[in-house]
Amino acid sequence: VLPGAPAGEVFFGDDAAVLARPGGSPLLLATDCVVEGVHFDRRWSSLADVGWKVLSANVSDVAAMGGDAVAAVVAVAGAGTGELEQLYEGLGEASAHYGCPVVGGDLSAGAELVVSVAILGTSPLHAPVLRSGARPGDALFVTGALGRSAAGLRLLRNDPARSGELEAAHRRPVARLAEGRVAAAAGATAMIDVSDGLGLDLDRLAIASGVGLSIERVPVASGATLDEALGGGEDYELVFAVPEGARLIAAFAAAGLAPPIAIGRCDAEPSLRRLGDATLPVSGFEHQLRNDERARADTA
Amino acid sequence: VLPGAPAGEVFFGDDAAVLARPGGSPLLLATDCVVEGVHFDRRWSSLADVGWKVLSANVSDVAAMGGDAVAAVVAVAGAGTGELEQLYEGLGEASAHYGCPVVGGDLSAGAELVVSVAILGTSPLHAPVLRSGARPGDALFVTGALGRSAAGLRLLRNDPARSGELEAAHRRPVARLAEGRVAAAAGATAMIDVSDGLGLDLDRLAIASGVGLSIERVPVASGATLDEALGGGEDYELVFAVPEGARLIAAFAAAGLAPPIAIGRCDAEPSLRRLGDATLPVSGFEHQLRNDERARADTA
Repeated sequence: VLPGAPAGEVFFGDDAAVLARPGGSPLLLATDCVVEGVHFDRRWSSLADVGWKVLSANVSDVAAMGGDAVAAVVAVAGAGTGELEQLYEGLGEASAHYGCPVVGGDLSAGAELVVSVAILGTSPLHAPVLRSGARPGDALFVTGALGRSAAGLRLLRNDPARSGELEAAHRRPVARLAEGRVAAAAGATAMIDVSDGLGLDLDRLAIASGVGLSIERVPVASGATLDEALGGGEDYELVFAVPEGARLIAAFAAAGLAPPIAIGRCDAEPSLRRLGDATLPVSGFEHQLRNDERARADTA
Repeated sequence: VLPGAPAGEVFFGDDAAVLARPGGSPLLLATDCVVEGVHFDRRWSSLADVGWKVLSANVSDVAAMGGDAVAAVVAVAGAGTGELEQLYEGLGEASAHYGCPVVGGDLSAGAELVVSVAILGTSPLHAPVLRSGARPGDALFVTGALGRSAAGLRLLRNDPARSGELEAAHRRPVARLAEGRVAAAAGATAMIDVSDGLGLDLDRLAIASGVGLSIERVPVASGATLDEALGGGEDYELVFAVPEGARLIAAFAAAGLAPPIAIGRCDAEPSLRRLGDATLPVSGFEHQLRNDERARADTA
């Protein structure tokens, strides 16, 4: 129904839309919403956690373009008395963490709690890094070990009061804003955030770029399983392709960031999905708590 | 919880947030969501109507700053099979009408349909017109007769199949983008859109500006009542204050727009709320279909 993007812009299909500004830096625009019972469960996530997480998911979309977060707006439906304050407590903490002010909002009655955030970003120093720029031979890196959020969720299902590191990763994931900028500056050709699971998100990058995937290793977070690392979502680590791994590693070190982890390479055969000697599973995170109603799709 | 805006920017409290861009035009950012049973009723509004209306409400927020609509993103929770297509049909029509592309979205399961739109705008030729700039003596104008949406809703409650002009105004209101730009260029000192009723929205403008209101006439749309014109919401006409009415009228004529309607003046006494010889009622639109759950508030 909708017309496509003009040259130099991106509508849908990437982590954020890219809008050209005459004489200025390109702008980034994205939205991510969370729904009670689908994306969060109040047994183990406070509404402050929910506020933190939904802003982080949006910031992650900007991070995955190599961008800066400029500002966010928040629409809330179905918040009960006093709940808005808790939600805004977490939004405010995330806002301060990312340097991304929450600048406006809307509020409505509703039968269930739905929090929709939209984020504006910019890319002042380089072109936004799309999903589609990876080339055969590019090295693939991820910014950290995976499966932490899914492992935390597993532990919280058994004991909602737990508060270890994995549980914190589920309740309050941290978007990799600095890592995205450094990867972009160091020549990343394609980038995506791991919001729905490494397998699925790598598959999206490969399809967009027209390359295959030859994955040699998957960094599994301590306490997580390989399945959680491959198929768990909401880690918000960044995956990117880069022609020169050495330059990238040096750039991360120079910026004081944890070393990115090499996981494999892009292949010239677009259908290749290899993990070691096996096939890379490309199914995604079971978004969720209410599987019978799954209808989630990421479009930007 | 949230820090305030730096000098030259506006967070919350106006129709849209204003963000300064070094070396570029200020940006505008706003969000408006609609919830089934609160903002729309499927007995008389199709999902295409809902899509049109929610994008229009967002465009109206940009129009009320005198801005241009640049792009919008849409988060949808709770859409059933096939419903997304209908929603996007109306979003696409409104997008084409306003020249405001829908550039990204998110989709989630959910128990009820919630559509959250966020809009990015810009104000390339002049400073954004806030609610707070009106001065005593400024003339107040509105871009059109009021009460059409509320009258249409009244008629549709009796006969959901009706399709006259008032019903169309309820189902598919039109944001006054061109009017907002011309008013801004012609020196409007304060502006707001009539989303919650003339009385309430004028009151907001008066409070933000620190002026009183002396209203001489309320333009009532044909078929609407005075109450509907004063307290009905969702007309999306613009109200603005301007020191020189003649210049404004000439600018509207030169742009080929319908003449703005003079309704009164701003007064030096901030507490004044006069309508003719009576008191201006400043209660707002009963938002709406589910009055027992009213919790809506407009924050940007």
